[in-house]
Amino acid sequence: MIVITGASSGLGAALTHLYAAEKHSLLITGRSEQKLANVMADLTPLEQANVTAHAADLCVAQDVSDLFSRLSTPPSRVIHCAGSGYFGPIEQQSPHAINQLINNNLTSSILLLRELVSRYRHHKVTVVVVMSTAAQAGKANESTYCAVKWAVKGLLESLRLELKDSPMKLVAVYPGGMATDFWQTSGKDIDTSSFMTAAEAATMLKQALIATEHGYVSDITLNRS
Amino acid sequence: MIVITGASSGLGAALTHLYAAEKHSLLITGRSEQKLANVMADLTPLEQANVTAHAADLCVAQDVSDLFSRLSTPPSRVIHCAGSGYFGPIEQQSPHAINQLINNNLTSSILLLRELVSRYRHHKVTVVVVMSTAAQAGKANESTYCAVKWAVKGLLESLRLELKDSPMKLVAVYPGGMATDFWQTSGKDIDTSSFMTAAEAATMLKQALIATEHGYVSDITLNRS
Amino acid sequence: MIVITGASSGLGAALTHLYAAEKHSLLITGRSEQKLANVMADLTPLEQANVTAHAADLCVAQDVSDLFSRLSTPPSRVIHCAGSGYFGPIEQQSPHAINQLINNNLTSSILLLRELVSRYRHHKVTVVVVMSTAAQAGKANESTYCAVKWAVKGLLESLRLELKDSPMKLVAVYPGGMATDFWQTSGKDIDTSSFMTAAEAATMLKQALIATEHGYVSDITLNRS
Amino acid sequence: MIVITGASSGLGAALTHLYAAEKHSLLITGRSEQKLANVMADLTPLEQANVTAHAADLCVAQDVSDLFSRLSTPPSRVIHCAGSGYFGPIEQQSPHAINQLINNNLTSSILLLRELVSRYRHHKVTVVVVMSTAAQAGKANESTYCAVKWAVKGLLESLRLELKDSPMKLVAVYPGGMATDFWQTSGKDIDTSSFMTAAEAATMLKQALIATEHGYVSDITLNRS
Repeated sequence: MIVITGASSGLGAALTHLYAAEKHSLLITGRSEQKLANVMADLTPLEQANVTAHAADLCVAQDVSDLFSRLSTPPSRVIHCAGSGYFGPIEQQSPHAINQLINNNLTSSILLLRELVSRYRHHKVTVVVVMSTAAQAGKANESTYCAVKWAVKGLLESLRLELKDSPMKLVAVYPGGMATDFWQTSGKDIDTSSFMTAAEAATMLKQALIATEHGYVSDITLNRS
Repeated sequence: MIVITGASSGLGAALTHLYAAEKHSLLITGRSEQKLANVMADLTPLEQANVTAHAADLCVAQDVSDLFSRLSTPPSRVIHCAGSGYFGPIEQQSPHAINQLINNNLTSSILLLRELVSRYRHHKVTVVVVMSTAAQAGKANESTYCAVKWAVKGLLESLRLELKDSPMKLVAVYPGGMATDFWQTSGKDIDTSSFMTAAEAATMLKQALIATEHGYVSDITLNRS
Repeated sequence: MIVITGASSGLGAALTHLYAAEKHSLLITGRSEQKLANVMADLTPLEQANVTAHAADLCVAQDVSDLFSRLSTPPSRVIHCAGSGYFGPIEQQSPHAINQLINNNLTSSILLLRELVSRYRHHKVTVVVVMSTAAQAGKANESTYCAVKWAVKGLLESLRLELKDSPMKLVAVYPGGMATDFWQTSGKDIDTSSFMTAAEAATMLKQALIATEHGYVSDITLNRS
Repeated sequence: MIVITGASSGLGAALTHLYAAEKHSLLITGRSEQKLANVMADLTPLEQANVTAHAADLCVAQDVSDLFSRLSTPPSRVIHCAGSGYFGPIEQQSPHAINQLINNNLTSSILLLRELVSRYRHHKVTVVVVMSTAAQAGKANESTYCAVKWAVKGLLESLRLELKDSPMKLVAVYPGGMATDFWQTSGKDIDTSSFMTAAEAATMLKQALIATEHGYVSDITLNRS
């Protein structure tokens, strides 16, 4: 069973399509039941048979707990794609939108990882955390977005130390320059025609998530060519 | 005029004492009026004459704005010491305390820097942001604390790019292992007898905050010896 | 055509086997003609038909130039695996071995990348630079090894900026904990039975080196599980 | 006793002047006896009385050893300023100059720190390693310079771990944009009129090198304002 967060659009939706096409059992989640239903509707009936959609607000601890209570066995993999963007010079950003940005990216990631560590730290579960290249360097006009992405990176690097002897593994993914709805709603005017599509990023990510007997790909950065 | 946040305890209070002793004009702030009054009470009458205390919740944008509306001219320096700690294995952390941690460290820093950039980006104001060595590396059992501190670092590195041609300067400070009340209320059981006292850290920080005609100390890390 | 450096052992040899098995045209190099001959001898006659071995000392600029002068067209990919290890407390390291370590890891990488940028910066060539997780953090008793690996990372990050609008792409690879001959000759006594084999690392690396129309995997870290 | 390397010009010479003016006992070193004599000649007779100059090539282990054999007791502080610059697009750099750059910055730093750790790891010696902001980020047309500076940073971070319980402390200093002879001989055409002078950098560095009973300033970045 693979769990995908942020599955209602962008990379999460693209990954859902790829994994569903290979008949993987999936539990997909997002805040909007309607959007999840739309993603489901795009799948073939055969693919749908293996996919369960369950709406959840990852900023609410109880929702996160309920989501995983649905599973009778630990998932093999959790791919955390949920997140949102918000850009512009800091002095033009609104306190309300800043709070949303923090919730959607940081609070959600903390509560999700808290739940996963709590439930599965003694199981062989691979947790893939999708961040952004904004987690790796400061960027002008992306100050608060960088802040929340750096935060998730700091969280993940710390949890790797807490999980040192655990079979649970954390994989860090940093995509840069993906063309998703994200940008249209982000307040940043940018030509995304040369950006990777979410489908391209999903294809690369799925292929790069490899493990062998003694090793695994632990960190992946995707960039525009 | 020097503005000090988080002035009611720890490094902020220690800096208040040092600067007040040198007759600097100060505006000190913290959430608790009572605690600020206690800090004032520890000053001599002569020192008190140059110090104004004003309680503010830095997580409330209006409070942040009101604070700086009190100043008739731009401050020469703002030293942002406000923050709180919360530690322990992630699975033992409570959602409520996590939200508080985010508010006290990240939301407050964003709203403060947003206000300062908005008001003073064309003025020669030095903004000193006190973080922690937890902003520089992951640490087991400090995952959420590292997260919020990494966030502030990402914010600051981004804002430096936004302020590239501005006379406003951002100074990053990373103290490691200070012995403050912070630890007693942090849920982490630790012997702090070999830690720097807040007074020691304040002494070093104050001395290291130097600028010359063409340059300045932009980043300072303090560590236990 | 794929060029592989450090092909006479470890990851380079393992990649040679994988790519040769898929009938890729290869130019493999290493310092020792004998060792390269041994690697060739391990290939099937059919595989050998597509593989050329050419000994070169990457610390000698002329050797590096001669190597690529053999190619009539730009290679599609260069995978730079050459390198050596040397470990122990700094006070026990010998000046001679330190110089060798610098030559084998840093000088060679600079001269190789200098040649590649000079020849191919206007061509669609992917240059894969294999470093180590020692390039990402300091490690006790690996001080000089970390030094040369950090150096290569600094080189690569700088060259990415120089190649910003070039079709040439640099891919950074950081393997951690591989079990190769490397360790036996490194002066570090370590049980490598739980380490990734070079074959495992090669399998993961080969699969993770993906590109799509608008994007590519630019950074990959491999770790022990 | 304070030992200063690279004392014949730039920051090293400026620090020599500052410390000599305060009557500190100094051992200053550089490759050129003539240049060291010039620095001495600039001091007052009273200052000269406390300063010893001794030429040494830090790339030669025996020279490094001989230098410290001159001291009858451990120095309180060693300030390592020696280094050189070399810039330009990688394809325009010469193998010979690259080797010199590696020697002057990396080999020298390794051999110096190796000697210091070997002699003084059980003594309260503060070793100040002056690098550059080029050690902290990649820079176009400074690829090899960044490489050697990143190397020294990797070395230092590793040695901090080896010296964890040692009274010897390593202080990292990262100056950015200093106007020294360095640039005139570096092959990089740059207007340095707004850069910090070496004297400014020395003033700030000297003041920022502080320690208290339980702590010390461990990392300092200087930047142009």
